[in-house]
Formats: sequence, C-alpha cells, structure tokens
Amino acid sequence: MNAEIIAVGSELLLGQIVNTNARFLSRQLADLGVNVFYHTVVGDNSDRLKSAIKIAQERAELIIFTGGLGPTKDDLTKDTIAAQLGKKLVLDEEAMRSIELYFEKTNRVMTDNNRKQALVIEESIILKNENGMAPGMFLTTADHKYMLLPGPPSEMEPMFMKYGQAAIAGIYGSQARIESRVLRFFGIGEAALEAQIEDLIDQQSNPTIAPLAGDGEVTLRLTARDDAAGTAQSLIDKVEAAIMDRVGEYFYGYDETSLILELSKLLKSKNLTISAAESLTGGLFQQELTSVSGASGLFKGGIVCYSNEAKIGLVNVSPATIEKFGAVSRECAEELAVNIAAVSNSDIGISFTGVAGPDSLEGHPAGTVFIGVYVKGLPVHGEKLSLSGSRTAIRNRSVKFGCQLLIHRLTETRK
Amino acid sequence: MNAEIIAVGSELLLGQIVNTNARFLSRQLADLGVNVFYHTVVGDNSDRLKSAIKIAQERAELIIFTGGLGPTKDDLTKDTIAAQLGKKLVLDEEAMRSIELYFEKTNRVMTDNNRKQALVIEESIILKNENGMAPGMFLTTADHKYMLLPGPPSEMEPMFMKYGQAAIAGIYGSQARIESRVLRFFGIGEAALEAQIEDLIDQQSNPTIAPLAGDGEVTLRLTARDDAAGTAQSLIDKVEAAIMDRVGEYFYGYDETSLILELSKLLKSKNLTISAAESLTGGLFQQELTSVSGASGLFKGGIVCYSNEAKIGLVNVSPATIEKFGAVSRECAEELAVNIAAVSNSDIGISFTGVAGPDSLEGHPAGTVFIGVYVKGLPVHGEKLSLSGSRTAIRNRSVKFGCQLLIHRLTETRK
Repeated sequence: MNAEIIAVGSELLLGQIVNTNARFLSRQLADLGVNVFYHTVVGDNSDRLKSAIKIAQERAELIIFTGGLGPTKDDLTKDTIAAQLGKKLVLDEEAMRSIELYFEKTNRVMTDNNRKQALVIEESIILKNENGMAPGMFLTTADHKYMLLPGPPSEMEPMFMKYGQAAIAGIYGSQARIESRVLRFFGIGEAALEAQIEDLIDQQSNPTIAPLAGDGEVTLRLTARDDAAGTAQSLIDKVEAAIMDRVGEYFYGYDETSLILELSKLLKSKNLTISAAESLTGGLFQQELTSVSGASGLFKGGIVCYSNEAKIGLVNVSPATIEKFGAVSRECAEELAVNIAAVSNSDIGISFTGVAGPDSLEGHPAGTVFIGVYVKGLPVHGEKLSLSGSRTAIRNRSVKFGCQLLIHRLTETRK
Repeated sequence: MNAEIIAVGSELLLGQIVNTNARFLSRQLADLGVNVFYHTVVGDNSDRLKSAIKIAQERAELIIFTGGLGPTKDDLTKDTIAAQLGKKLVLDEEAMRSIELYFEKTNRVMTDNNRKQALVIEESIILKNENGMAPGMFLTTADHKYMLLPGPPSEMEPMFMKYGQAAIAGIYGSQARIESRVLRFFGIGEAALEAQIEDLIDQQSNPTIAPLAGDGEVTLRLTARDDAAGTAQSLIDKVEAAIMDRVGEYFYGYDETSLILELSKLLKSKNLTISAAESLTGGLFQQELTSVSGASGLFKGGIVCYSNEAKIGLVNVSPATIEKFGAVSRECAEELAVNIAAVSNSDIGISFTGVAGPDSLEGHPAGTVFIGVYVKGLPVHGEKLSLSGSRTAIRNRSVKFGCQLLIHRLTETRK
C-alpha cells in the first residue's frame, strides 16, 4: 500500500508551525509497511484542498489528512472531502455526547458551532478522540482509503496509535491489536548497535525492528501485529530477549523515559538521596533532576563549582589535588564526589569535571571528562570519557553517562 | 506572486527528519509578500519528482526546491529539473574552485563525484554556498521562476538570506538589498504588544513588521527593501524608533540573541562576576550562563539550594527567616542573593525561590516566584512574580525574568 499525508492549515504555510504530524505519521506508517510517497501541505481554502485531494487520488491508495476538524469556519476538511466523494455529513451521537461532557467537565458554556465537530462523513469508522473534541474518521471506497485526524499532535498521536493504525491494518474493532514497544539504549552508536543485530532486523517481519538515533541515544521500536491467537506481546517479548542477549548492557528503559528519569525512579525505590558537584556541566545534571516534580524527596541541593576557587572554597577540594593532578582529573572528580555527599548530607555524590570546549584546558582536548561517583559504603569510582561534538553535546552526554554509570553502580549493589 | 516549496528527500518521507526548511522559507516569503499555497515533500525518485514539478508548474509562479544537490546518486534534483525544462547542466568554474578549496582546507581527498556539485543549470543565476559545497540556482523562464537550494538548514538559510531573497525580489546583483532586523521583547504578551503598535503594522509596507511569539518572548521582524537611494537600513531605523517609543521598556536585544547572552555581555563589559542560589530553577540559570564558552570570566560557581536544609546549610540563610516568612518569600530571596555573593566572593548575587508546581507549596500556588538581585554597593531587591504554565515554562520564565531584572538594575546604575 502507498500513502500520501495531507496537512490542512494556513498556519503551516505561513511558517508559524512546523509539520511534525507528517513526521510522526511517516514513522508509524513505515512500521506498518506502508510506503509514503508524498507529503502535501495546503491552506484553509476549499478549492485548493479539493485540488490537492484530486491529485492525491491519482497517486495514493491511502490518504491521511491532519487538521481542519475543529469548530470554526476555517475548519473545512470534512466538508470538502465529503463533497468530493459525494457523501453526506451525519451527526454522530456518541461524539456529540462526548463534546457535551467535555464542556461540562471544564465548566464552560458550549457554543453552537461546537456541534459541527460531531458531524462525521457517513459510512465511516469513527476514531474516538480521547484528548479533545473532534473525532477522527476512516472511510473505505472502491479505490481508496481515507483517514481524517485532528491537527493538534496531543490529540492526533494517541488517536492514531490506539485506533488509526488498527484501521489501516484492517483489524479495527476485532480483538487483534498492533502493539509496539520502544527499547532505549545509551553508550553505543547506531551503526554499532545495528551491526550487532543486523540479522535480527533482516529476518524479522512480525515484529518489525526499527532503529532510530538522536541525542546520543539509540532506540529500537518493535511493532507486532496479533495473529489469530493474539500473541503480539509475546512475539515482541521473544525478539526483545534476543536483542538483549546481544546489546543488553547498553539498555536503560522502555518507551517514553530518559536516563535521568530511570535514575530518579531507582533512587526513590531505594530511598537514597543524591547531590552533585558540577564543573563543566554547569548545573545541567541538577536542572534535569529537578525538572520532574517530586525531586525534593531525593535531592536536597548541590554546587556548581565552575572555577577552581569554587571547587576549593565550596566543595572543600584540597588545593594540593588541583595543583598535582589538575581540575580535569580522576583525582579531582573523586574528591568532588565524596565531598559533595558530605557537604550536603546525602547518600550519594556525583561530580562532573572536564573540558566542554571549544578550547582545550590544562592540556586536555575538548571532550575530556571525568565523572566521580560515590555511594555511601562503597569505594568512590572515577571514570574518564573522551567525547566529541559541540559544547552542548559534550555537556549533555556527560550528564547521560553520569546517570548510566550511577544506575550500573546501584544495580550492582543490589545483586 | 504565489509560491510552492518542494522538499526533495526520502528521509523526510521516512519520518527521520522534519521539514523545518519549509517553515523557514514560508516565514521569509511572507515577509517578502509572496503567498505560499502549497508545500510538497517528495522522495529521491526521478519520476515522482518530475510529476511533482509538473503539478507545481500548474499552480505556482515561484517554485523553490530544497535538497538533492549533493554528490551522491540519490541527489537528482538538478538533473530532473534540467531535463524537465530542456536545459543543459554546465560546469560552473567558480563553484568548482570553491569545492576544491573546501577539500584542501579540510585536508581531505576529493573524490570524482564531488565534481557533480559544480554542475549548474545553464542560464541560471548562481547562489553562492558559503557554508558548504553545493551552490544554489535561480532560473527564470517565460512562466515561472525556479530556485534550487541545498537541504542542510545550515547551508540553505544563510544562502537564502544573502542571495535568495534578493533574487526573488528581482534585485539580485544590483546594489539594492533587502535588509531585515529582529527586535526581541520579553515581559509582554504577543497580543498586548501588537495592540500597542497595531497602527504601525497596518500602515507599514516598507519595512514590513512581522510579529512572532514563542518561549514567552515576542519578536518583531522588520524587513525593508532598498529604494533607489539605498535606504533600507534608515527605513528600518525610523520604524524601530517608533516601535521603541511605545514598547521599548520590554526590548532586550537584536537578531539572534537571548536574555542570558545579553546579560553575559553586560557583565563582561562591566567586568563584574556573578553567582546564583537556585531553588525552584534547580540550576537552570547557571546551566544557561555556562552554556556559552567563556563564562569562566564572570562566573565562579553557585549553589542549587533545593531544600530548606541546603538554603540554611549551604547558603547560610537564617532559620528564623524561613520560619517566619517561609522559603517562598521576598525575605528569603533577598537573603539568598546577598549571601550567595558573599559565599562565592562575587560582585553580584541572584536567587530564585518559588513554586514550580504542579502542587502548591507553603500555601502559595504554582507559579509564585521570588527573585532576589543583589549588586554590591546597591540595596538588595526582591521581586515577586505570578507565572502560569507548566513546570518547565515556570522555571524557564523565572530565569528570563531574572536576567531582565538584572539587566535593568545594571543599566540603571550606568545612568
């Protein structure tokens, strides 16, 4: 099957927003084995939308629309498609009830134009909107399949994942489901990871294995379709086990998570507190740790010791250590980690010292980083990294490596 | 004039990257008064690209292509357009020289396929690539104008700004230029700012005034076209002065900058050092301050005092202050600011304490924030903010408000 994605919205043509919906849907369709040949963006204009539909009908079997399902006059996707296909719009009672409920819940008065959102193209499967008002639609004609999705990603993405992909796979409403699971890895490059599981990727069709790299991490999305016995999850389990056998040491979490979140969960479960002494990362570790609500249970505070004066004055590093080994050294990192735990009265101390670049420092090139990890009751551990990339990339990766190091350290102690 | 933007690249159809080029060009074209009616994305496939070109010829006068100008077999934009228009590809000597130079500079051996990048469509204006190898092109036929731009935004954007927009405006190669200047504002909403300068926006056509909001900031882009006397800059100056009269108190900088950068510049120029005590912002201020190389001259270090224990133990806040006024108070913020300057031996202390949310704290709702600013020799100043939005938004805005507060404070002392 081949597909075209048509985004409807003048705000896209004015450059006010970027078409992230097309990227999201393209990725998902690739997982489903659907080829996307074109993306089109067209404004809130009935004639131009009509013409875009005609062109898409010539070159695609599946046409997915995003946007233009709302209550205002500008929202003309439904009307235009219905007119083009000679179909009527009919009121969907369930959608109407859920719109009324939405207004009740938010204590607002429903204006009349909101009824428009409950109108759907006759004969279509209704895709429930669990994060907004306008329902989606899926319609099959002799030559084409049409899917209409809302524009806001917060509504579109969950609707597509829960109902849309099942409709495309032809299993909507059956017990069969499409399941997907994302495995997240850090500390290994995309090419190296793919090389280790190349045969698995090539052999697999259910589930499919789709790698994706970004921000120094690699993810693998496993997507399986139920067979008659409803075994999607167990098919994924089996492939996951095979992948873990090869590259499990780099794995850190499932689906939407991050290294800092996984570390936070682990600290909470073990009832441990942490503090940090940050030089090259300038507060990035602590900023990420506290970006999630509820950090106060595991983090009391820490120090950004950017200068040697601050390392000595605020974290009590011995001047002799800096004189003998330099601030960019394993010795300094270890002393910072031990001292910050003491100064802040925490169970764990972590430290980051090194060269963010672009200039070198103390004779070390940019990317030389030492991380100190101290867990009360265990010997302190210092790790040297040689990172590449921009100043921002080096700082970000340092924090990620620090999280991973600490997760490994804490998981070992559990054994 | 109306336009279509065609992005060529299978990586877009696979969802590996998002089409930010279309957004960039759409914004710029809006400034030039060109209507964009369609965006199209097509893969690295000659037949489908041909068909996309034919469709665009039917519906647009100006067709802008991004991507597919590189050295590999997949890069077929030039060949396909040339074939479609019955034009030849010819070697551009200047482009060839600059490609050779590029390899010399980077000490790499040039492979033969790189010559392909110096081939251009005959009769076109060559748009120089000052950030990569593949040149751009602008070609005028009886019915259309075609522009070919490279795919990487780091090459495409400067090429368009320096040469592309002049070509579209028909003033390429003349002395006349299109100039633009971005004015950046913080502390005023987009609607409020627009309301104050609505008449200016409506009256103006040269320069145009284009507002854009994001990340709690508002920017105005002023774009002017030279008249015969080459007065684009002075036309912009005049409108800028009129805008500043109305909303100058919220202005903080020109073009690509940020509040933290402007603050850093100011501190450097005054040879002042700064330190921070951060509670709700968790290190964000210090992380931003040190994200730019060269921060060590103005920042020695600081403290993340997330808990009351850390405020008392690390920043020497009096327990009586917290008991009497709470940690979320002007008094606590002021004491933190004064003490952090002393503890770190810096000229300036800034502090952030408040409620990032989602839960309330000490009876204050999420978004209640106190910022303390202490500049040696001046009385300490505490400011209360009532912010709204997510945890992340509240933290980000707190840091921006802190920067602005300090810039105002330091600029006053200059008077």
